[in-house]
Amino acid sequence: MKIRAVYPGTFDPVTNGHLDLIQRSAKLFDEVIVAILRNTDKTPLFTVEERVRMLRQVVRGQKDVSVTTFGGLLVDFAVQMKASVIVRGIRAVSDYEYELQMALMNRRLSPNLATVFLMPAEAYSYLSSRLVKEISQLGGSVRGLVPPLVVRELQKKHRSMRLREKPTK
Amino acid sequence: MKIRAVYPGTFDPVTNGHLDLIQRSAKLFDEVIVAILRNTDKTPLFTVEERVRMLRQVVRGQKDVSVTTFGGLLVDFAVQMKASVIVRGIRAVSDYEYELQMALMNRRLSPNLATVFLMPAEAYSYLSSRLVKEISQLGGSVRGLVPPLVVRELQKKHRSMRLREKPTK
Amino acid sequence: MKIRAVYPGTFDPVTNGHLDLIQRSAKLFDEVIVAILRNTDKTPLFTVEERVRMLRQVVRGQKDVSVTTFGGLLVDFAVQMKASVIVRGIRAVSDYEYELQMALMNRRLSPNLATVFLMPAEAYSYLSSRLVKEISQLGGSVRGLVPPLVVRELQKKHRSMRLREKPTK
Amino acid sequence: MKIRAVYPGTFDPVTNGHLDLIQRSAKLFDEVIVAILRNTDKTPLFTVEERVRMLRQVVRGQKDVSVTTFGGLLVDFAVQMKASVIVRGIRAVSDYEYELQMALMNRRLSPNLATVFLMPAEAYSYLSSRLVKEISQLGGSVRGLVPPLVVRELQKKHRSMRLREKPTK
Amino acid sequence: MKIRAVYPGTFDPVTNGHLDLIQRSAKLFDEVIVAILRNTDKTPLFTVEERVRMLRQVVRGQKDVSVTTFGGLLVDFAVQMKASVIVRGIRAVSDYEYELQMALMNRRLSPNLATVFLMPAEAYSYLSSRLVKEISQLGGSVRGLVPPLVVRELQKKHRSMRLREKPTK
Amino acid sequence: MKIRAVYPGTFDPVTNGHLDLIQRSAKLFDEVIVAILRNTDKTPLFTVEERVRMLRQVVRGQKDVSVTTFGGLLVDFAVQMKASVIVRGIRAVSDYEYELQMALMNRRLSPNLATVFLMPAEAYSYLSSRLVKEISQLGGSVRGLVPPLVVRELQKKHRSMRLREKPTK
Repeated sequence: MKIRAVYPGTFDPVTNGHLDLIQRSAKLFDEVIVAILRNTDKTPLFTVEERVRMLRQVVRGQKDVSVTTFGGLLVDFAVQMKASVIVRGIRAVSDYEYELQMALMNRRLSPNLATVFLMPAEAYSYLSSRLVKEISQLGGSVRGLVPPLVVRELQKKHRSMRLREKPTK
Repeated sequence: MKIRAVYPGTFDPVTNGHLDLIQRSAKLFDEVIVAILRNTDKTPLFTVEERVRMLRQVVRGQKDVSVTTFGGLLVDFAVQMKASVIVRGIRAVSDYEYELQMALMNRRLSPNLATVFLMPAEAYSYLSSRLVKEISQLGGSVRGLVPPLVVRELQKKHRSMRLREKPTK
Repeated sequence: MKIRAVYPGTFDPVTNGHLDLIQRSAKLFDEVIVAILRNTDKTPLFTVEERVRMLRQVVRGQKDVSVTTFGGLLVDFAVQMKASVIVRGIRAVSDYEYELQMALMNRRLSPNLATVFLMPAEAYSYLSSRLVKEISQLGGSVRGLVPPLVVRELQKKHRSMRLREKPTK
Repeated sequence: MKIRAVYPGTFDPVTNGHLDLIQRSAKLFDEVIVAILRNTDKTPLFTVEERVRMLRQVVRGQKDVSVTTFGGLLVDFAVQMKASVIVRGIRAVSDYEYELQMALMNRRLSPNLATVFLMPAEAYSYLSSRLVKEISQLGGSVRGLVPPLVVRELQKKHRSMRLREKPTK
Repeated sequence: MKIRAVYPGTFDPVTNGHLDLIQRSAKLFDEVIVAILRNTDKTPLFTVEERVRMLRQVVRGQKDVSVTTFGGLLVDFAVQMKASVIVRGIRAVSDYEYELQMALMNRRLSPNLATVFLMPAEAYSYLSSRLVKEISQLGGSVRGLVPPLVVRELQKKHRSMRLREKPTK
Repeated sequence: MKIRAVYPGTFDPVTNGHLDLIQRSAKLFDEVIVAILRNTDKTPLFTVEERVRMLRQVVRGQKDVSVTTFGGLLVDFAVQMKASVIVRGIRAVSDYEYELQMALMNRRLSPNLATVFLMPAEAYSYLSSRLVKEISQLGGSVRGLVPPLVVRELQKKHRSMRLREKPTK
């Protein structure tokens, strides 16, 4: 019995906490699909294409880990991918409540799909993509919180945004 | 890569919520070891032997599920069993906090051992062995909360306890 | 002493969890006023008029239950309606905290008005209007989560939205 | 339709927070039965008889409020009393979780019985019988936290306990 | 050793809960800098200048308390101010989780800077600037929740907003 | 203005998390009194005298830090010590709720005494004396969780307990 797991998220951008979970999932399951949500409502910092590219680079060399995108219902995507597990990371209690609601709803929509919660290392317990973006935008260092590639991409992104903002001021 | 999981607990007695988790674990992992903690401090309702017997009966026919007991540190037991996963069920937020502490401590004691959290069906979200014992002792029905075998064992146990209590009154 | 209760909310749209609470409230209090907040800030899926119409249909036949809308402070509305109870449903811990703050503030604004918390059935514990809208919009089935009337109204709404979106693409 | 409510608890001893809830319940429901749990497992500070006597004194003059004791399952007692409501006070989030579990279990055991949560005034949000006993035993003042009668009874109780303890030293 | 503390926030507007914390901080530390975040993303009710003016008026006469604004990273501002303490108020559990994440991140960014949590008086436990603005805008009284000066400024602000809104209707 | 802080606890035994908080407190306040509660109800692993001795050794060299014991009400002890601050460490949400209740009660008993919450380093977020004792008793390593002195004392203690238990078997 081969177990394929989907690890869905926004990954805007991928953090070391995400990477930690990808590696743990890859040890537990035969195949891990990192699935970036194409959400047209929000205005992300990185485009979906940029996020795919960054994620592919940081998981390079990890066999049995692939990166893709999805729209629509997560459970439909998982079924289509022949996955039987959804992996979610939980940090805080508030996370956990929302996750529990989603997991119960997903079980109702697709009873054979299991949601499995993993815990990031305690060093990443306070880490989120949002916090990384805020700190980075305000000029703080995010080294050690995201992969080196993402440190550089964040700097490039903020530099280009400042250039674009200039004329409007 | 074969993944062996340990599902530790007191199981005093096993509930339908536990059974739900055992079945879900058996789908996710190649082998599941249900491990009853031999805790000499507490005074359980059922002896360790009774609990092993009941659990073995209710998981009978589920291949790849075995029942045993353990003492000492859970991580030492897991390593000795060549297990790489600890399975825990979480219901309430308060559970979750304690579970998180234990999981972080266990990771520190044995970094290669992963703790995986699963969610019982919502019908069992309010179910605990303690509540089952309380209701049963006060004469309430626990049918639907525990396997039929355990309903009978609880009745027997409470009957014999009342008999034993009589003379001392 | 006749007790009139106000059950305020956005009801965008009404779910089976809301209906469960309306029915429970109707058993406890002499009269229940389901009160839809006219909130000009948010952009709801259904207009206030559509929500009134749907709610009236689903509570039809329940005597002592009426549906109306309100603006301004909830406590002012309740006093004006000669209600002495505000009914609120609580599901998750995070809900509960916000509800507690609102209830304490409302007590300060109107000390004779009591806030009463009821619990939806566990089958609805993960149910929210937001989740219903998300699933429905992505093509998932919400049958069993909302009344049949609302299933149809959601399909109509999403169909008309897709038609309107087409030309802009 | 007359609504009779049961407000169960240990009341060891009754606090001003309990009294606040009794008064609020009496406004909402036609009749309130304050029901002291006879729990033979715990060692209370006050006997059940002392607690009944104190409660009866502090609710004296409140018509439609009565005080009694119960053993066995709360839902069986409520049904026997022809009550349709169980009243519970909630203060903290941790309270709330346990209360939710109990309420869901009680609904399963007796579906027609509703559990209603009320909120004590914020001045009593940190108040519990346990804290009152601790402070009182260590010589701190509990005036304003419990009715004057209970202040005197606590002093008497602690004095008699100290007398009894003396010879054993 | 002189200890200088920074108490950061949005203060849109300052409430009696904030004032309570400023006064408590001033007793604990040698100097308190109330620091208003200049956040260009959000649309506040009061401009940064109005908030500075109001805060300066309400802390007038409290020596060792000053009011200023900051942009960028809080830890950079604190270091620049030679402050060694960040003061944060916590009310609810949900607050607390976010605060904990921020505090852990700030410790990582600046290990010598301590975050100290203080608790507002229980009378202010349900008080937030957001709630004050909502109630005030809907015509409710916020007397006792904010300093008298702020009551007047809120009335002025809402009056001028209604005037501005008129023509657009 | 000299600020003296009391850091109360059971310290059975002192952990690296406690030490972290003592050092942080010593930076914030002029004097820190580590105060061991003499609680005759519980059965600790180490006697009060052993705990005083261990704590004195591990804080040796930290000027402005002293170790003592107290009975009775914490606020009475703090007032007697001329302390104006109580320091408490918070880790989990469940801790936090209990701490908040205690802090509100202590404020009521002694309004001029402030309770200040500090956060241990994230590496100690899952660390408690109870967990240390459990792991140590089961033969696990607690190196890195408690000072080296305490590692040795725990080993001695468990060895002597095993010797004492032998004959009774």
